[in-house]
Amino acid sequence: MTTVVERLQRELDGRVDVSSVARENVRADKSGHASAGLPLAVVYPESVADVQAIMRIATETRTPVVPRGAGTGLAGGANTGAGEISLSLTRMTRLVEINADDLTAVVEPGIINAQLNDALRPHGLWWAPDPASREISTVGGNIATGAGGLLCAKYGVVRDAVLGVDVVLADGTLLHCGHRTVKGVAGLDLTALLIGSEGRLGVIVGATLKLRRLVGGTTCTLTALFATVRDAAAGAAAVTAAGLQPAIMELMDATSLEAVHRLLELEAPAAGQSQLTIQTDGATSRAEAGAIAAVLTAAGAVVAMTDDAAEGAELLRIRRSMHPAMETLGTTLIEDVSVPRSRLADMFDEIARIEHAYDITIPTVAHAADGNLHPNFVFDGPEVPPFIWEAADDLFTSALRLGGTLTGEHGVGVLKSRWLKAELGDAQWHLQQRIVSAFDPLGILNPGKVFAP
Amino acid sequence: MTTVVERLQRELDGRVDVSSVARENVRADKSGHASAGLPLAVVYPESVADVQAIMRIATETRTPVVPRGAGTGLAGGANTGAGEISLSLTRMTRLVEINADDLTAVVEPGIINAQLNDALRPHGLWWAPDPASREISTVGGNIATGAGGLLCAKYGVVRDAVLGVDVVLADGTLLHCGHRTVKGVAGLDLTALLIGSEGRLGVIVGATLKLRRLVGGTTCTLTALFATVRDAAAGAAAVTAAGLQPAIMELMDATSLEAVHRLLELEAPAAGQSQLTIQTDGATSRAEAGAIAAVLTAAGAVVAMTDDAAEGAELLRIRRSMHPAMETLGTTLIEDVSVPRSRLADMFDEIARIEHAYDITIPTVAHAADGNLHPNFVFDGPEVPPFIWEAADDLFTSALRLGGTLTGEHGVGVLKSRWLKAELGDAQWHLQQRIVSAFDPLGILNPGKVFAP
Ligand SMILES: Cc1cc2nc3c(=O)[nH]c(=O)nc-3n(C[C@H](O)[C@H](O)[C@H](O)COP(=O)(O)OP(=O)(O)OC[C@H]3O[C@@H](n4cnc5c(N)ncnc54)[C@H](O)[C@@H]3O)c2cc1C
Ligand SMILES: Cc1cc2nc3c(=O)[nH]c(=O)nc-3n(C[C@H](O)[C@H](O)[C@H](O)COP(=O)(O)OP(=O)(O)OC[C@H]3O[C@@H](n4cnc5c(N)ncnc54)[C@H](O)[C@@H]3O)c2cc1C
Repeated sequence: MTTVVERLQRELDGRVDVSSVARENVRADKSGHASAGLPLAVVYPESVADVQAIMRIATETRTPVVPRGAGTGLAGGANTGAGEISLSLTRMTRLVEINADDLTAVVEPGIINAQLNDALRPHGLWWAPDPASREISTVGGNIATGAGGLLCAKYGVVRDAVLGVDVVLADGTLLHCGHRTVKGVAGLDLTALLIGSEGRLGVIVGATLKLRRLVGGTTCTLTALFATVRDAAAGAAAVTAAGLQPAIMELMDATSLEAVHRLLELEAPAAGQSQLTIQTDGATSRAEAGAIAAVLTAAGAVVAMTDDAAEGAELLRIRRSMHPAMETLGTTLIEDVSVPRSRLADMFDEIARIEHAYDITIPTVAHAADGNLHPNFVFDGPEVPPFIWEAADDLFTSALRLGGTLTGEHGVGVLKSRWLKAELGDAQWHLQQRIVSAFDPLGILNPGKVFAP
Repeated sequence: MTTVVERLQRELDGRVDVSSVARENVRADKSGHASAGLPLAVVYPESVADVQAIMRIATETRTPVVPRGAGTGLAGGANTGAGEISLSLTRMTRLVEINADDLTAVVEPGIINAQLNDALRPHGLWWAPDPASREISTVGGNIATGAGGLLCAKYGVVRDAVLGVDVVLADGTLLHCGHRTVKGVAGLDLTALLIGSEGRLGVIVGATLKLRRLVGGTTCTLTALFATVRDAAAGAAAVTAAGLQPAIMELMDATSLEAVHRLLELEAPAAGQSQLTIQTDGATSRAEAGAIAAVLTAAGAVVAMTDDAAEGAELLRIRRSMHPAMETLGTTLIEDVSVPRSRLADMFDEIARIEHAYDITIPTVAHAADGNLHPNFVFDGPEVPPFIWEAADDLFTSALRLGGTLTGEHGVGVLKSRWLKAELGDAQWHLQQRIVSAFDPLGILNPGKVFAP
């Protein structure tokens, strides 16, 4: 009897890697968490037909398949374990079409977000979703996780920027979902359902993206220092309450700010100081920056402002260095709760309470314009210790109590699947699994992810 | 044995209407098409618990239920026939909460779009979706159809403006889908799936809407007269290609323009003349209007411009009078195809070809900024004659061939269900029905709609 790996090798010559290095690599993503055991193989389809062939073999042999983009996920969604095949989209990287008149692009899933945008720039176009990982993550992965980013309060998340997806189902069937038109309501909106489906419903093998024209005007950058994180959160709320719409509004708490300043060898901020980093863009950027500065000064901040692009990038680098700065402190579990904007300050109170209760520090940054927080749990060693999970549990429960969600942009994966039922409720949790079964009756696509077994 | 109507009357005293007038009324919506036979009853739930009670009785007795908002739909989606119950949401009209800080509102489904916006205005807020029927259609109906409107090229459609929905399933289960936060990716996006589901998945009993702040600045209105409809379509394309973003850009072909001028007793336009009506808004509205005027003049149009609000409203009234003007000509089947923006002129060529082939005129208006056309088939008598359906079939096929869709905003209902499979493909059509079954295993919610039996 031929094994599944032999069949894959026969049908996909040169596109199957069974080396232990390759198989070891795909056990983990960037969450720090790794699957138990070594997968069977890593396959690298080069076409839609390849993906269909893989899924047909998987269906016939009842072998679980885990779709994988760049593996930058923070929820363990692409982690592949014993008995499973890792299906890597990294060889399907073509930019198939740019249509400047329709503001659309057609892409293969493995194209890196930043490379797509490099190719769009000469046409005066861009794809707005800008996860901090845009230099290293794939557009397919961005779609599969429903990624957000720094600019998304003003320019939208992935959900707002995809018109259609091509998807291969567990049995190898290819579907074209969505449309190339701006509007369209024919039948159920499967495109929207596939966005954020974390590899549970199908393998995304192509997408029609909704583009924007590059924004003109001068980008202005502001930093605002506050005495406490609560004040900074209140300052951010005051900006949105004033009807102002920054392109970026990032909050860093005192521990985050300190850690980054240490990493970048900058002068240490005063104890307890928290910071907002804000950019405005477009035709009215200067006027908006001025108005924001006034609101923040009135809220008690020390505000600095520049319209120099290089200086602005330097200021934003402080925020962008959060991830490396955390890595200098130990292993990190990056969380991703989101609360209604008006509850941001309350969520910081909860974080302070949890820090106190568990005797830990939780450096936290936030996309302040949309209430999305990334509390970082830092610990020693490779595995999340139980008391950190207890603190995280407390964090999730607090976010839900404030009307929030477990995950604003990173997804559920394996790391948050235990808590999903608490957010969705029993009935919705079961209904969602019936929907998964409608797509994948044998349950071979990324089993165990999102919905805890 | 008690009948289903007796059970409804017993449990929902005062909320069940079995008069023939009421039952006759719900046989049709505004599509002109009516169901065969008289429904069992019209029920008017006043609370979520009422809706749950109705659905439990319907499930126990296997009685089909058709959810209904204001009945302004143009696809026959709310039409109710023999053996069915019409579930009218028109008594659930509360505006439960306005949160200006979070830019959210919580509503019951029966609230009328324009009434919601009247209530939001004093808070400096609005809900962007603005179907031409906003004075008479419900927010729940807008969500269930995924409605669009005049402003949606700039400000988005319903899909972009709903954060969460509460839904009662066929068996009476209540689900809270989505979230109150700006971002959230926990589990499958059922909110997005419910938008545009036309009553097939559940009864929408509440929604959390994403609001915008009222837009400041002076609204400028332009009209541009072109010698032919093809020129007008090319003019609209030139505006978007120049990177300009009007709030409204409506196109009227010669027959539409003539009919409206006759209705409003205005001086007749020159033969063949077509018109774009454009509005710009916001801080840079004047500069944008000027730039648009330049583009259109270069494209051969005669352009007029005003920044007077009353004058602007008067010019837009010409576009808004399309529906009554058509009613003076005969019975109308209002179609709703959408094509990629760059194919708008080609679609007008197709319409001209179809007019010629079937020896009919098809007055057509279009939301030109997003490629959505409303060709009007006008005929005598109450029923769509076969040759009109043949012409419509030709229209749909042409739109699909140009990369378009059957329906940009009105939905599939009964009138377009025969063509849905051609757009979705067999496999997707069947998968969508498996999803419907996951929500409604007995198939009692709006059976026969969207998916032709
Ligand atoms: C430094 C850093 C910063 C980050 N910043 C952000 C941020 O700002 N915002 C944000 O949202 N995320 C952020 N992330 C998380 C991560 O980059 C995103 O989730 C990203 O979208 C994942 O893309 P990927 O290609 O790496 O996908 P992977 O990690 O490979 O996969 C993620 C999930 O999607 C599925 N998947 C991937 N490709 C496909 C496909 N083609 N078809 C079907 N399923 C597929 C996988 O099965 C898995 O469940 C960050 C990560 C890092 C390391
Ligand atoms: C003059 C005129 C102009 C129009 N202009 C536009 C336009 O510009 N853009 C546009 O998109 N549409 C337009 N329409 C069509 C129509 O107004 C929209 O489709 C509207 O969204 C329907 O709302 P309704 O409350 O009347 O819903 P109904 O007609 O009562 O129902 C429509 C569909 O939604 C379902 N439904 C309704 N309420 C619920 C609920 N609470 N839960 C579950 N299912 C429900 C029904 O079963 C049915 O399938 C226009 C109609 C007219 C008559």
